[in-house]
Amino acid sequence: MDPIILASSSPRRQEILKMMNIPFQVIIPNIEEKIDSSKSAIEITQIIAKQKIQAIINSIPSKQIVPWILSADTVISLNNKILGKPESQNEAFEFIKLLQGKTHEAITSIVLYNGTKKSTSIKTAVTKVTFVPMTDEEINFYIETGDWHGAAGAYRIQGIASCFISKIEGSQSCVVGLPIFELYDMLKSQGYCIIE
Amino acid sequence: MDPIILASSSPRRQEILKMMNIPFQVIIPNIEEKIDSSKSAIEITQIIAKQKIQAIINSIPSKQIVPWILSADTVISLNNKILGKPESQNEAFEFIKLLQGKTHEAITSIVLYNGTKKSTSIKTAVTKVTFVPMTDEEINFYIETGDWHGAAGAYRIQGIASCFISKIEGSQSCVVGLPIFELYDMLKSQGYCIIE
Repeated sequence: MDPIILASSSPRRQEILKMMNIPFQVIIPNIEEKIDSSKSAIEITQIIAKQKIQAIINSIPSKQIVPWILSADTVISLNNKILGKPESQNEAFEFIKLLQGKTHEAITSIVLYNGTKKSTSIKTAVTKVTFVPMTDEEINFYIETGDWHGAAGAYRIQGIASCFISKIEGSQSCVVGLPIFELYDMLKSQGYCIIE
Repeated sequence: MDPIILASSSPRRQEILKMMNIPFQVIIPNIEEKIDSSKSAIEITQIIAKQKIQAIINSIPSKQIVPWILSADTVISLNNKILGKPESQNEAFEFIKLLQGKTHEAITSIVLYNGTKKSTSIKTAVTKVTFVPMTDEEINFYIETGDWHGAAGAYRIQGIASCFISKIEGSQSCVVGLPIFELYDMLKSQGYCIIE
């Protein structure tokens, strides 16, 4: 299998590619993730994931063959309000206070660039995540674990936050940031077959 | 926090307790997991999880204080047919052939024994898992990865099988074998609080 450039620094995305036995190399795209509030959450993830691909293509010398490039972008959306990565402990508390007792959506778009065909394909996965009601004591306990650092919506579903998540509808890997079924399906449609 | 006896050899269950920062010790219960076909899948998991607890209690000298004991049992159920762990590569192929293109249920019951109160509490989690249609080539590719060994229903949701799982409704940890939200909730009701 050809190696893929993964345009993401996320260790969890790297773990998923390893689990799928896909050879890859990480190049972190240099883009500013600006959220355009006139767009829907799905559009935003698609725009940012495409920008990540373009940033990698631009960084490769023009005579060099551009191989497969994969990018992904994930946001947490509650009633059309987008929650990014909290910038402080207080903001993390506010985000969890908003999410508790409600169902929100985790949205991940993945973009695959085929360097031979110079074509781009895109897929979006949406997963509903339900938090049970939490006391302020529970929110504080959670915040003090520090698990909110660098996580969209201030939680990671594979971490201690899952004590307070009663249900998901979709896939865990979508919430983690790289939906496995959609990735497999997209690779297959593009002729990149992980079955040998 | 008091250490808990985990009545299970499953490494994934151990990982979940570690993630929750619960101190534990593993004692593997010596029971024969017989499936009584007159019972429902939920009843079967509850009966076996209780038998695991009882086997641990019986193995502890009578004067010794019995602490907290936690057990769990998971089955895969498709249209009321229970799929256990496949005994051969052929049986693993048959199981995946049955599951592909359909939605089945992963059922996990957890039992917690409180040694001080000599009381037992039980909870059951059910998660719907949808496999997309698979070609025989895809099933063979999957079977040859060997990931079916020792897995109820011949798959592990955290492994390569997730390429073929389009959706779950419930929780990933229920399918893995130790539902995190239900465990947290049960511990809390029993006064074993992981929040300090």
